Amino acid sequence: MAIMPAPLAPGSTIGVLGGGQLGRMLAMAAARLGLKTHIYSPETDCPAAQVADAATFADYDDEDALAAFAAAVDVVTYEFENVPDATAALLAEDVPVRPGANALAVAQDRLEEKTFLRSLGIATAPFADVQNIDGLKAALAEIGCPSILKTRRFGYDGKGQVRINTPDAAQAAWDAINAQPAILEGFVDFEAEISVIVARGLDGTVAAYDPARNAHENHILATSTVPSGYPDAVEAEARTIAERVVAALEYVGVMGVEMFVSPNGALVVNEFAPRVHNSGHWTIEACVVSQFEQHMRAVAGWPLGAPTRHANAEMTNLIGDEANDWQALAAEPGAGLHLYGKGDARPGRKMGHVTRLSPRD
Amino acid sequence: MAIMPAPLAPGSTIGVLGGGQLGRMLAMAAARLGLKTHIYSPETDCPAAQVADAATFADYDDEDALAAFAAAVDVVTYEFENVPDATAALLAEDVPVRPGANALAVAQDRLEEKTFLRSLGIATAPFADVQNIDGLKAALAEIGCPSILKTRRFGYDGKGQVRINTPDAAQAAWDAINAQPAILEGFVDFEAEISVIVARGLDGTVAAYDPARNAHENHILATSTVPSGYPDAVEAEARTIAERVVAALEYVGVMGVEMFVSPNGALVVNEFAPRVHNSGHWTIEACVVSQFEQHMRAVAGWPLGAPTRHANAEMTNLIGDEANDWQALAAEPGAGLHLYGKGDARPGRKMGHVTRLSPRD
Repeated sequence: MAIMPAPLAPGSTIGVLGGGQLGRMLAMAAARLGLKTHIYSPETDCPAAQVADAATFADYDDEDALAAFAAAVDVVTYEFENVPDATAALLAEDVPVRPGANALAVAQDRLEEKTFLRSLGIATAPFADVQNIDGLKAALAEIGCPSILKTRRFGYDGKGQVRINTPDAAQAAWDAINAQPAILEGFVDFEAEISVIVARGLDGTVAAYDPARNAHENHILATSTVPSGYPDAVEAEARTIAERVVAALEYVGVMGVEMFVSPNGALVVNEFAPRVHNSGHWTIEACVVSQFEQHMRAVAGWPLGAPTRHANAEMTNLIGDEANDWQALAAEPGAGLHLYGKGDARPGRKMGHVTRLSPRD
Repeated sequence: MAIMPAPLAPGSTIGVLGGGQLGRMLAMAAARLGLKTHIYSPETDCPAAQVADAATFADYDDEDALAAFAAAVDVVTYEFENVPDATAALLAEDVPVRPGANALAVAQDRLEEKTFLRSLGIATAPFADVQNIDGLKAALAEIGCPSILKTRRFGYDGKGQVRINTPDAAQAAWDAINAQPAILEGFVDFEAEISVIVARGLDGTVAAYDPARNAHENHILATSTVPSGYPDAVEAEARTIAERVVAALEYVGVMGVEMFVSPNGALVVNEFAPRVHNSGHWTIEACVVSQFEQHMRAVAGWPLGAPTRHANAEMTNLIGDEANDWQALAAEPGAGLHLYGKGDARPGRKMGHVTRLSPRD
């Protein structure tokens, strides 16, 4: 039996790879617990560094900077899933990296991810491995049209994917994703996307928040609403699926698991992100322990917090110039406004979010 | 009619005098709104500097450091009431200081404070000005015994005060407070202390949170509980008193107003603090806009948030080695744990707090 490491004492330092708004909210959650945060980011004056105890501004392949970072922190985590393998491996020689390399490897590769889910008996969209144009044609014959061709790696918010409506569009699609290793996915007949924010502690305890119902605009999350509106049995099944995923990966930290709900209530997992998730921001206001604190508790070896929700909530992202409405949002009674400290409101950029609470059903 | 200044845009910097846990929680609240914080503190590695964008470590009479600080920030506020007059005056030459000099002057002097309250027709304990030992004897003849002799300035958490049980203890009491200008206060027959966290915005809007019932141990706040358990009429009167105080001072920011509740439900104001207040920490979990965010909204010229409470709450301070129980507290379902990043758990030192929510009555 493995010896359970002692939790990191208050005053310990958690290193975070990535300096965006997720890192910012992680740092703020850690501070509440008396834990320090050291941000590692290629970008200076990033949102997370503004609120952290310390920051290193260096590239992810800067071995000297990584070594110094590893020496300065007690554990390393990350706020984005595309951490380079070599970066994680180098850090792991000196300091625990949580979630671990296995979770990163599976989550970074859509084919690995779907294959892993299938191995657990969890429903996914039909999918096929695509290595080249002939493979794509074979996959189209198997999966049918319409379908969607996605690069195996480094896709997010609708990037790195193209819809194929007819088999004769295969070559154009293959060119559009720059002839990279890919996966062809069939479409799922669904009426909504929900997501479950789930955590697993170092001691193996798992805790899932209530599912949120998500709406997207332009492939970017627009709103997350809890409760989801689905029956208790569907919500319980969603939590169970998410718990099975983190248990099977021996995961440590918070994960966001996205699922489609079929018209008959069946659940199909779309993808999971090995990090805190935009669809879990509502937990800041609606739960005593937010997803951000939960993640920092897990990576620090602390007990998980109860994922209990004391209110209904709707989270709305502020994308691009929507954040210019801050004065009106600040004046709205009961609106919890969050702005991420980003200077430039470029189109499509997540600038902040608002959470509105209502009494629990 | 005065022109209302524009609110500080996100990205602006709020300077905070003082680097303790109140400054820490102010900085975290500002960060949520995309506002930056610059801490000014004589103590390096103070709790607030750990989470702020910038920090200046210098004494409050260091004119060069103060000038540089004023030049680096858009507005100045403070987390403790004993800001030296000269410090505030020097800063105010270059940058708005909120709350203003008037509030500081009144709140720093117990005699001014009580005289001001009396001028508003707000009930206080009986009190008399004490300038010397003869004055103390005259005051004792007027107020009677038991009574309490307090220095006019720089008292908190029971410091700078001594109880007088019989007139022949006058000289000893006078010596005990080092023969400083003082106030003699009569005792009030009360069954509980409550406090109201109230805010006034730059536009004159006022907003009071629900009163908390406070319990002390060794002259230090132990717990704050909302609702207070008093009838609606008493709670409404308490909020009204607090609102009148901030209105009369043309105050900008959050104030904590402490009151005694007589057995017949009458309210007597004990004192007020021109800053966020320990008895308002419960607002972090139980309200969408906490007292800390409310204060930063006010000093930045933003609209006040609604002081609505969505849950019942009990806040318990962690004093000295009570914070050593962090592992058990972290494991307690529903407990919101806050640790302040202080290294040394000296007896009597506020190391953190816990807030426990329950469904709203």
